[in-house]
Amino acid sequence: MVANDPGSKARAGLLETAHGKIETPIFMPVGTAGTVKAVHQRELVNDIKAQIILGNTYHLYLRPGLDLIEKAGGLHKFNGWSSPILTDSGGYQVYSLANARKIKEDGVRFQSHIDGSRHLFTPESVIDIQRIIGADIVMAFDECTPFPCDYSYANNSMKMTHRWLQRCCDHFDATSPKYGYEQDLFPIVQGSTYKDLRTESAETIASHNRSGNAIGGLSVGEPAEDMYAMTDLVCKILPKEKPRYLMGVGTPENILECIALGVDMFDCVMPTRNARNGMLFTTEGIVNIRNEKWKEDLSCIDAGLENEVSTFYSKAYLRHLIISKEILGAQISSIHNLAFYLWLVKKAREKISLGVFDSWKREMIKKVSRRL
Amino acid sequence: MVANDPGSKARAGLLETAHGKIETPIFMPVGTAGTVKAVHQRELVNDIKAQIILGNTYHLYLRPGLDLIEKAGGLHKFNGWSSPILTDSGGYQVYSLANARKIKEDGVRFQSHIDGSRHLFTPESVIDIQRIIGADIVMAFDECTPFPCDYSYANNSMKMTHRWLQRCCDHFDATSPKYGYEQDLFPIVQGSTYKDLRTESAETIASHNRSGNAIGGLSVGEPAEDMYAMTDLVCKILPKEKPRYLMGVGTPENILECIALGVDMFDCVMPTRNARNGMLFTTEGIVNIRNEKWKEDLSCIDAGLENEVSTFYSKAYLRHLIISKEILGAQISSIHNLAFYLWLVKKAREKISLGVFDSWKREMIKKVSRRL
Repeated sequence: MVANDPGSKARAGLLETAHGKIETPIFMPVGTAGTVKAVHQRELVNDIKAQIILGNTYHLYLRPGLDLIEKAGGLHKFNGWSSPILTDSGGYQVYSLANARKIKEDGVRFQSHIDGSRHLFTPESVIDIQRIIGADIVMAFDECTPFPCDYSYANNSMKMTHRWLQRCCDHFDATSPKYGYEQDLFPIVQGSTYKDLRTESAETIASHNRSGNAIGGLSVGEPAEDMYAMTDLVCKILPKEKPRYLMGVGTPENILECIALGVDMFDCVMPTRNARNGMLFTTEGIVNIRNEKWKEDLSCIDAGLENEVSTFYSKAYLRHLIISKEILGAQISSIHNLAFYLWLVKKAREKISLGVFDSWKREMIKKVSRRL
Repeated sequence: MVANDPGSKARAGLLETAHGKIETPIFMPVGTAGTVKAVHQRELVNDIKAQIILGNTYHLYLRPGLDLIEKAGGLHKFNGWSSPILTDSGGYQVYSLANARKIKEDGVRFQSHIDGSRHLFTPESVIDIQRIIGADIVMAFDECTPFPCDYSYANNSMKMTHRWLQRCCDHFDATSPKYGYEQDLFPIVQGSTYKDLRTESAETIASHNRSGNAIGGLSVGEPAEDMYAMTDLVCKILPKEKPRYLMGVGTPENILECIALGVDMFDCVMPTRNARNGMLFTTEGIVNIRNEKWKEDLSCIDAGLENEVSTFYSKAYLRHLIISKEILGAQISSIHNLAFYLWLVKKAREKISLGVFDSWKREMIKKVSRRL
């Protein structure tokens, strides 16, 4: 770690990967099928200042498929993104998207949501898949329990996730990277909203002593207080010197609160998905650009950001594009929202380094959470 | 005119507008509702090298509406495109998109395709609208006859278009630009595929002695030979020293053939609309990127172009995006196709200046028309 905030458990760190260093805390734009929706790769670099993006194993496995990705020399070569990539294990999408899934000790059988074809994901196969994708950080195979989840199911599921983790680690350690650079494996804490299960899971995950650790099964519908309580509890157990990744979180407020609890890495579809619906996160608050009040607002989208897109186009023009369902509307708002998220974590890092994160966070949450 | 090709009637020219000079022959990307679909304004400049874009009066009038455009200070200010803009008169969209249209001597009554609201376009009102939009080049109000069109209808329609033109010219000359820079009015030749009507119309249009002239009512379903024959006939009548604009044309082959007949300006939705469906125009021929044959083709989209997008992404990656309906697929292929069209007219201009256009055209048509 580079710096610790005296008023909270927030940390500034540096995460080294085969494709470069990542300054934490960091937000990772979601590039589901090898593309961050509506955003060019060069825009991720120039406008958004993304340091690492996500890929979804489930989507990439189904389309374009592993043969092509391997032929290209991995996902970096295939999509032209030369900075770090993290891939999830495919578990979450199997539960949320695939049809006719059957979860057994061996793994998960499911049918593709695209063509109904039948597939099996096992702890070993998702490691193989992520070897072929060539992600810098690969995730262990887990079951992400829904909310609410009864104790007995959560307990059994967590124990299976732990057994799957052992199989993931064994297989990961027994196999080699495909493209000449190292990959890291992050295990995932589960346990739903039960303190004893979360404690047991965090201790188990920590005992595997991998280079980073993730917290899964949150941001699935539980109250924010539960998310924060579980994150706090787990962060206290996961080793300080390693990056902590809170999966699928969240709003700007969620991110600032969880940075304060010791989280280093985030991902979420919210900035891009909401962008396409006209919801903008700005340095002054939340803007629903469809509202009549922005119709004649010729001021730029967000003067508080420095990227060209947020300062070039006006709110009125963007509103016109979104109302008219023009593709450029999705492009502009996606770039803007991601640039805002990356700005937010960069500012957080600066404030941590200055030792003033906690007070800044309180003010910033008021600003970025209000609806304009 | 800057140069004339000795082997054809092709010319290289320079068209001056209030927002800059345009090197002809030129292709104008279509920016229907104030946006060239899926393309950022900076990409029009940097990747595509567009010199002038089109706006559609019908679309802009309905959405975002004239109040907002006027408040912004014209379309250039509203969408941030600071190079020349040409607007059509709205006539074509009224006939092809609007509901319940009634064409009378006074003008055209129609209902909006968006919300069914009732509107009236007259020769005078479309001039007023284009004054508010602030286009550098505004088009006269005409009736674009369908193909096929019986002689009597075509004749009566043409005569009404000529009467409307007189009203357009009178109103244009009696009104002033709104934003302190000059606008030009181009009249439009009609007459369907009838030689005597086209001759009469071209003579009438030429007699108005405006700064440029357009050819309408072609590329509406007639055989290519008819399009070329009418264009040739009309170009022979329209004055040499003024730019000739062939509306709504066309394929790369159409454009090269019509440059050879003396046309200077083109517009067409084909490069962007077809792009969104995965049809690419390249320096080597036409690519349907959805075809299985491109699935594993990791070569760049078009090594014959110099823009970053056509050389950065691979065919296999673009195919994956198009098949997966990812927005980035539409973005990449739209930029590529427009960059190709602008490359094609730039090359044509070079060859005209070198006096070798005609032989180059013959070779180039073979190349760009073949399906790969």
